[in-house]
Amino acid sequence: MSKKKRNKVGLSPGSIIYTGKFSNTNACIRITKYSQDHLNEIDLAEFRIDALLPIPNGNLWIDVQGLDQVNLITSIGNEFGLHPILIENIVDVEQRPKFEEYDNYLCLIFDTLTLNEETYSIQNLQNAIILGQDFLISFQEGHDDSFRTVRERMRNTIGKTRSKGSDYLAYALVDAQVDGYYLVMDRLEEEVETLEKNIETSNETDIRQKILHLKKELIKIRRSIQPLREALGKMSRTDSAYIEASTSIFLKDVFDHLVYLMELTENLKDMLSSIYDLYIAQISMRMNNVMKALTIISSIFIPLSFIASVYGMNFDNMPELRNPHGYFYVLGIMFIILLGMIGYFKKRGWMD
Amino acid sequence: MSKKKRNKVGLSPGSIIYTGKFSNTNACIRITKYSQDHLNEIDLAEFRIDALLPIPNGNLWIDVQGLDQVNLITSIGNEFGLHPILIENIVDVEQRPKFEEYDNYLCLIFDTLTLNEETYSIQNLQNAIILGQDFLISFQEGHDDSFRTVRERMRNTIGKTRSKGSDYLAYALVDAQVDGYYLVMDRLEEEVETLEKNIETSNETDIRQKILHLKKELIKIRRSIQPLREALGKMSRTDSAYIEASTSIFLKDVFDHLVYLMELTENLKDMLSSIYDLYIAQISMRMNNVMKALTIISSIFIPLSFIASVYGMNFDNMPELRNPHGYFYVLGIMFIILLGMIGYFKKRGWMD
Amino acid sequence: MSKKKRNKVGLSPGSIIYTGKFSNTNACIRITKYSQDHLNEIDLAEFRIDALLPIPNGNLWIDVQGLDQVNLITSIGNEFGLHPILIENIVDVEQRPKFEEYDNYLCLIFDTLTLNEETYSIQNLQNAIILGQDFLISFQEGHDDSFRTVRERMRNTIGKTRSKGSDYLAYALVDAQVDGYYLVMDRLEEEVETLEKNIETSNETDIRQKILHLKKELIKIRRSIQPLREALGKMSRTDSAYIEASTSIFLKDVFDHLVYLMELTENLKDMLSSIYDLYIAQISMRMNNVMKALTIISSIFIPLSFIASVYGMNFDNMPELRNPHGYFYVLGIMFIILLGMIGYFKKRGWMD
Amino acid sequence: MSKKKRNKVGLSPGSIIYTGKFSNTNACIRITKYSQDHLNEIDLAEFRIDALLPIPNGNLWIDVQGLDQVNLITSIGNEFGLHPILIENIVDVEQRPKFEEYDNYLCLIFDTLTLNEETYSIQNLQNAIILGQDFLISFQEGHDDSFRTVRERMRNTIGKTRSKGSDYLAYALVDAQVDGYYLVMDRLEEEVETLEKNIETSNETDIRQKILHLKKELIKIRRSIQPLREALGKMSRTDSAYIEASTSIFLKDVFDHLVYLMELTENLKDMLSSIYDLYIAQISMRMNNVMKALTIISSIFIPLSFIASVYGMNFDNMPELRNPHGYFYVLGIMFIILLGMIGYFKKRGWMD
Amino acid sequence: MSKKKRNKVGLSPGSIIYTGKFSNTNACIRITKYSQDHLNEIDLAEFRIDALLPIPNGNLWIDVQGLDQVNLITSIGNEFGLHPILIENIVDVEQRPKFEEYDNYLCLIFDTLTLNEETYSIQNLQNAIILGQDFLISFQEGHDDSFRTVRERMRNTIGKTRSKGSDYLAYALVDAQVDGYYLVMDRLEEEVETLEKNIETSNETDIRQKILHLKKELIKIRRSIQPLREALGKMSRTDSAYIEASTSIFLKDVFDHLVYLMELTENLKDMLSSIYDLYIAQISMRMNNVMKALTIISSIFIPLSFIASVYGMNFDNMPELRNPHGYFYVLGIMFIILLGMIGYFKKRGWMD
Repeated sequence: MSKKKRNKVGLSPGSIIYTGKFSNTNACIRITKYSQDHLNEIDLAEFRIDALLPIPNGNLWIDVQGLDQVNLITSIGNEFGLHPILIENIVDVEQRPKFEEYDNYLCLIFDTLTLNEETYSIQNLQNAIILGQDFLISFQEGHDDSFRTVRERMRNTIGKTRSKGSDYLAYALVDAQVDGYYLVMDRLEEEVETLEKNIETSNETDIRQKILHLKKELIKIRRSIQPLREALGKMSRTDSAYIEASTSIFLKDVFDHLVYLMELTENLKDMLSSIYDLYIAQISMRMNNVMKALTIISSIFIPLSFIASVYGMNFDNMPELRNPHGYFYVLGIMFIILLGMIGYFKKRGWMD
Repeated sequence: MSKKKRNKVGLSPGSIIYTGKFSNTNACIRITKYSQDHLNEIDLAEFRIDALLPIPNGNLWIDVQGLDQVNLITSIGNEFGLHPILIENIVDVEQRPKFEEYDNYLCLIFDTLTLNEETYSIQNLQNAIILGQDFLISFQEGHDDSFRTVRERMRNTIGKTRSKGSDYLAYALVDAQVDGYYLVMDRLEEEVETLEKNIETSNETDIRQKILHLKKELIKIRRSIQPLREALGKMSRTDSAYIEASTSIFLKDVFDHLVYLMELTENLKDMLSSIYDLYIAQISMRMNNVMKALTIISSIFIPLSFIASVYGMNFDNMPELRNPHGYFYVLGIMFIILLGMIGYFKKRGWMD
Repeated sequence: MSKKKRNKVGLSPGSIIYTGKFSNTNACIRITKYSQDHLNEIDLAEFRIDALLPIPNGNLWIDVQGLDQVNLITSIGNEFGLHPILIENIVDVEQRPKFEEYDNYLCLIFDTLTLNEETYSIQNLQNAIILGQDFLISFQEGHDDSFRTVRERMRNTIGKTRSKGSDYLAYALVDAQVDGYYLVMDRLEEEVETLEKNIETSNETDIRQKILHLKKELIKIRRSIQPLREALGKMSRTDSAYIEASTSIFLKDVFDHLVYLMELTENLKDMLSSIYDLYIAQISMRMNNVMKALTIISSIFIPLSFIASVYGMNFDNMPELRNPHGYFYVLGIMFIILLGMIGYFKKRGWMD
Repeated sequence: MSKKKRNKVGLSPGSIIYTGKFSNTNACIRITKYSQDHLNEIDLAEFRIDALLPIPNGNLWIDVQGLDQVNLITSIGNEFGLHPILIENIVDVEQRPKFEEYDNYLCLIFDTLTLNEETYSIQNLQNAIILGQDFLISFQEGHDDSFRTVRERMRNTIGKTRSKGSDYLAYALVDAQVDGYYLVMDRLEEEVETLEKNIETSNETDIRQKILHLKKELIKIRRSIQPLREALGKMSRTDSAYIEASTSIFLKDVFDHLVYLMELTENLKDMLSSIYDLYIAQISMRMNNVMKALTIISSIFIPLSFIASVYGMNFDNMPELRNPHGYFYVLGIMFIILLGMIGYFKKRGWMD
Repeated sequence: MSKKKRNKVGLSPGSIIYTGKFSNTNACIRITKYSQDHLNEIDLAEFRIDALLPIPNGNLWIDVQGLDQVNLITSIGNEFGLHPILIENIVDVEQRPKFEEYDNYLCLIFDTLTLNEETYSIQNLQNAIILGQDFLISFQEGHDDSFRTVRERMRNTIGKTRSKGSDYLAYALVDAQVDGYYLVMDRLEEEVETLEKNIETSNETDIRQKILHLKKELIKIRRSIQPLREALGKMSRTDSAYIEASTSIFLKDVFDHLVYLMELTENLKDMLSSIYDLYIAQISMRMNNVMKALTIISSIFIPLSFIASVYGMNFDNMPELRNPHGYFYVLGIMFIILLGMIGYFKKRGWMD
C-alpha cells in the first residue's frame, strides 16, 4: 500500500512528487466556462493562462487529468495561489480523503472506486477539488474521466448544476463518485451472498481465499468512505463564504449516504465473520463424517475378526471345531453380531 | 439490501425515484381535519388542493399511502414548499431514520417493522412525517395502514390526540410503530429461547441456519432502532416552535423505550453468541462420544485377538496346545482380560 | 423479559397499566410523618387525603407497596400533580433506572435486587421515588418491604435521617438498595469462584449450564446498575432546589459504590470467559487423554499380532516352526518388542 | 474481593467501619513538623492535640498507620473538620483511587502495591492523603511504612521536600508509590517473558494456571492504576489554592508515568492472550503428533497382517504354500511393502 | 521494556538519570548558527557558553548526541532555564512522545525508529526538541545522527529551512523521523505479505514465531506513533508565540501522515490476525489429511483380514476349504471388495 512513499523519503519536505503508478502520456486539461445560458468547453494539452478568461456572470471549471503531470499541476497551483503543501498533497495519492479550508479556497480530497470485474479487486483513484470564488479546479488520477456523467448533464442542461455556483458543482462531482461506491458495494454484497449460498458445495481452499480477499477489499473501501464521511460532515457544517447555505443541505445528503455505506460495510464484515464461522464448522463436520464412517467399519469387523481368530487357534481339544455344523453356527453368530452392532450404531444416531 | 439504489446511479442528483419494491396500483390520500369537537375524514385517489381547506381552530393531517406515487408526492411537496432533496429522501427507502429541522417544518423518517410469521424474516417499511404549523403530512410505504390504531382512537376520541396539536399526533404515530417493535422483539426473543431449549435435540444444520438467520434479523432491527433513537433524542431536545414543551416529555418517553429496545437487541445478540458456543461444544461432544465408544470396542478386542493369533501359530512345539484344557483356560483368560479392561475404562470414566 | 409489554401494544399512549407479575391482594400505604422530635406512622389500606395532614416543621413520606394498585397510584399521582406519563412509568416495570427533573418534583426509578438462594436467579423489583418540597413518595413493586431497614432506623432515631430533609431520606432509600446489590454480587462472586475451583472435577454439562446461567444473571444485574449509576451521577450534580448541597456528597458516595459495582461486574464477566476457555481446554484435554491411551493399546498389539499371524501361515517350509524352541523365542521377541514400545512411548511423554 | 463489604450492609449510611483485614495492635501516629531549617519528629501511640503545635513557618505532616484504628481516625477527622463520609471512605478499603476537593482541604486516595515474591500475588493497600493549608494528613493501611523513603530523604534534606509546601509532600508520597508500581510491573513482565520462553517445555496445567493467575493480577493492578491516573489528571489541573502552580508540573509528570503504566498493562494483557493462543496451538500440535505417530504404526502393520492371514487360510489348494521358498518370498514382499509405505509417508511429510 | 526504570526507584523525585542503554564515550555537541545567508557549524566535545554567541538575524540550533551525558545536558538545561523535571524527562527514555508548553519554550519528545534488517526487530531511540525564541535545542539518544538529512539540506540551502525560523526547523526534524517510520512500515508490510504468500509451504513453528514477533513489533511502533499523533495535533493547534501560523500547516501535514500510519498499523494487525486464522485452519487441514489417508488404509484392510481369518478357522467341516478353486474365489472376492471400497471412498470425496 505505501510502497511508493519510499521514493519521497530523504527528500526535502514540500517536494512535489506523484506517488501513484499511472502515467498519462498526454496531459489533459478540460476548461469549462458555464452559466445558466452559456457553456464553453476547451480541451488543452498544456496550461495556457489566456484560456482562463471568464465568461460574464459565469463560473470556471478546470479539470486536470493525470496526477503525474507534476509541472502542469504546479503551474496551475502557482497561478491560483495554492499552498505548496496542498499541491504536494494533490499528487500524493497516499492521502486520506479530507476537507480543508484555506484563506482563499477550500480543498476536498476524495477517491473514485472502481471494481475489476474479473479479480473483484477494488482500485481507488484519488481526486482533489479546489473550490474558490467562481472557480473550481478538479484533479483526477485515473485515465477515465470520473466526472463524465456530470459533464454530460451540464451539456444537456439536466439538473441544477448550470444554474448554481461552483459549490453545487463540487457537490455534483462528489455525489457522482459516491453513487459509484454504491455500485461497488452492490457487487461485493452479491459476492458475499454467493459465497454464503455456495459454502456447502465449494472447494475449501477457494472459500478461505475468497473470504480473505473480500475482507481486504472491505478494509480498502472503508479507508475511502470513513474519512470522506468525516470530511463531508465538516464541509456541510462549514461557515465558509464559498459554500452557500442552500448547498449545505445537498452535502448533508451525501453525508447521509456515506453513513449508510459505512453501516453496510460493517454489516458485510459481520456477515463475512459469520460465513467464516460457518465454514470452519463445515470443515470440522465433514472431517467428522469421514472419521465416523471409517471408524464404524473398523469397529464392526474387529470383534468379528476376534471370533474368527479364536477358531483359528490350534488347540488339540476344541470341541466346537469337531462339530460338523460348528462352522455354520459361527458364521450365523457373526451375522447376528453384525446386525446387532449396526442396529446399535443406528439407534445412537452414529450412522446418519 | 442496497439492490435498488443502482437504479439511481448516473442520474442527476435530486431525481425523485422510489427505490422500494411495493407498487400500490391505487394511490391513497387520507385527509383528516380534526379539532377537539370535530373530525372530518376525506379519502382521495388523487391530490386536490381544495380538499385542504381547514376547519376552524383545527389541525390538518394528510396521510399518503404508497411511496411509488412519485408524481402525487411531488405535487404535495411543492404545495407545502418541501425541499426537493427532502422529497427525494421520502421516496428513497434506503434512508436511515432521522430527524431534520427545516425553516417551515420538521421532518422525521422512521420504519414500520413487521414479522413474517412463517419465515421469521422482518420487513421494514419506511414512513416519513412532515410536521408544520397546524398540519402534519405522513407518507407510508406499506399497503397496510400502519397508522390505523391512531386513526381509530381519534375517531372514538380516545386519548389526547384530538385535543392536542400536530406535534402530539406525530408522537402518537411514532409511538404506535415503536409498540410494533416490541411485538417483533418479543417474537424474536421467543425464537431465541426456543432455540436454546431445543439445542440438545435439534438437527445440527437447522440450528446453524437459524442462528445465522436470527443474527441477520437482529442487524436489520438495529438499523431501524438505533438511528431512530438518536433522531428522537434530538427531536425531544429541539427548541423548534413546532414542538410544544408539553409534547417533549412524551417524545422523551418514546426515546426511553428505544433505549430499552436497543439494550434488548444487544442482549439477544449476546445470547445468540452464547448459544452458538454451546452448539459448537455440543457438536464436538457428540463427535467425541462416537469416537470414544468406537475406540473402546477396538481397544478391547485388539489385545484379545492378539492372544488368539498367538495360539493360531503353527509351531511344532507349543505345549499349551497339547493341554486338553488349554482352550478353555485361554477362553477364561480372555474373559478375565475383557472384564479387567471394561473395569479400567469405567474407573477412568471413559465409558459414561 | 419484555413478555408483558405486549399487553400495552395497541392501547392509547398514556394508558396506566402495570406490566409486572406481582399481585398484592391488599394495597398497602404507609404514611410516615417525621421531624427530629416526632415520628408518626399510619398504615392505610386505601388512600385518604386527610391522612396527609403534615406535622409542624416535619416531612411526609408516603410509601406505596404493590404497583398493581393502579387506581390507588393514579389518585395519589393526581393529588400531587404528577405528570400522567410519569405515573405510567412508575407502574411499567420495563423502565430502565433513571433520574428526571420535573417542575415541582424529582423522580428516581431504581431496582431492588434479590437472589433466589436455590436457583441463583436474580429477581429485580422496581421502585420509584418522587421527591418534592417536604415530601417523598416511594412506590415499591415487591411484597417485602425493601425499605424496612431505613424505617427501623428512623423509628430508633439512628443516623441522620430524622434530622434531615426528604432528599436525605431519598439517599438513604437508594443506599439501602445498593447495599443489597453488594450482597447479590458477593454471592455471584462466590459462585464464580466455586465454579473455578470445581472445574476439574465437575460434570461437563453442569459447568456449561452454570456458566451460561451466571452470564445471564450478570447481564441482568448490569441492566440495573449501569443506568442507576448514570442516574445518580446526574442527581448528585443537579442544581435542583429539592436537593441540598450537603446531600449531594452522599449521593456522590452512592455513585462511587455503583462505579465500583460496575467494575466488579466487568471483572466477573472476564473471569467467566476465562473459566469458559479453561473448561473448553479441559474437555479437549480429557478427550485427548482417552484417545491417547486407547490408541497406545492398539499400537502396541497390532505389531505383535502381525508377528503371531506370520507364524500362523501355513507354508510347508517354515524352518522356525520346526525349531523345538521357536515358539518360546517368538514369545520372547514379542515381550522385548512390547517393552521397547512402552519405553519409547514413555520417553516421548505419550504415556503420562 | 468485596467479601468484607457485607459487614456494612444494613448499617446506617455513614457508619465508620474498617473493611480491610489488617489489624495493627498498636496504633501508630507519626507527627513531622518541618521547614527548610528544622525537622521535628514525634511518634505517638494515641492522638494528643497538644502535639500538633506548629513550628514557625513550618508545615505539619501527620501520618497514621493502621486503618483499623477507627476511633483514632475519627477523632483526627473531627479535629480537622473532615466530612463524615470522607472519614468513612478513608477506612473503607473498597474505595477506588480518587481525588476530591472539599472546601478546606483536598483528598487523594491511592494504593500501595506489593508483590508476594512466592505466590506472585499482588496485595493492594489503601492510602489516603488529606491536604490543607500548611498541613498534610496521611493514612496508610499496611504494617510497613510505605512512606519510609520520603521520610528518610526529608531527614537528610535530600530533594526539595523540606523547602516546599504540603502539596509537594503529597506529590512525593504518591510518586514513591508509583515508583513501587514500576517494580511490580517489572516482576510481572519478567514472569510473562519467562512464561513465553518456557511454553514449549512446561507442564500444560501449570501454564494454564499461570496465565489465569497473571490475568487476574493484571486486572487487580489496572484497578489501582486507571482510577489513579484520572485522579492525578484532575489534581494536576485543579485551580485549588492548596496546590501551587509549580507543583502541578510534578503531578503532571506522575500522571505521565501512570499513562505509561496503563499502556504497559494493556500490552502485557495482549502478550498473555498471544501466549494463550500459542499454548492452545502447542497442545493441539502435541496431540496431533501422538495421534500421527501411533496411526502410522497401525497403518503399516494392518496391510502386512492381512497378507499373513491370507496365507494362514486353510484351503486345500493353495499353490504358494507348497512352494518350498514361498514363505521367504512372502517375507520379502512384506519387507518391500514396509519400506514402500515408510517411503510414502516420509514423502508426504507425515513422519517428521 | 521498563527494565531500567528500576534504577530510579527509591531515588528522590527529580533525579536526572539516563534510563537507556547507550553509552557514547564522547559527548558530541553540534552548534549550528544559520540565517538565509550564513551558516556556521561548530562541533564541541564539551559545552562552552561562549560558543553560543548568535549571528545577526540568525537562529541557533544546538544538537546534543548521547543522552548518557547527564552533566552536559544538565548544564545546557540550566543555561537555558529548562525546568528540572523536563531535563529529567529528556534523559528518561521511558517517556511517551509528547508536546508540552512551558513559559519560555516548547518541548516535543519523539522517537526515531530503525529496523534491524536481520532480526526484523525495531529499535526506538528517543529525541527531544526544545523550541524557544530564535533557538532550538535537540537531544538524540542514538549514535547515528538522525538529523543528518536535515543538516545536509541546510548546508546546501535546499528547501526552506534556512529562510525560516526555529519552528520550521522543528517541523523538518520531526518530518524526517516520520519519513523513517514509513520505511519501517514498508519493511514490516513486506514481511507480512511474504508471510501470507508462504503460509502453505513454511514450517509451522516458524510461522507461529514470526506472527508473534510481528505482532510485538507493531505494538512497539504504535507506542511511538499514536502519542506523537496526539502531540502533533496539539502542536499544530497551539497559539504559542513560538510557532508561526505558516508553520502550523506543515505540522498539520505531518499529523496527517501519522493518522495514515496509524491506520496502516491497524490494517497490518488485522492482516496478521487473518493470517493466524488461516494458519490454524491450515494446520488442522494438514492433520485431517494425515488422519484421513491413514484411516482409509486401515478401513480397507480390516474387512479383508476378517475374511482371511474366517478361512483360517480350523473347523473340521468347512466345505469351501475343500473346493479346489476356493482359494482363488476368495482372493477374487477380496479384490472386488477392495475395488468396491475404494470406489465408495472416492465417490464420497474422502480420497482427494
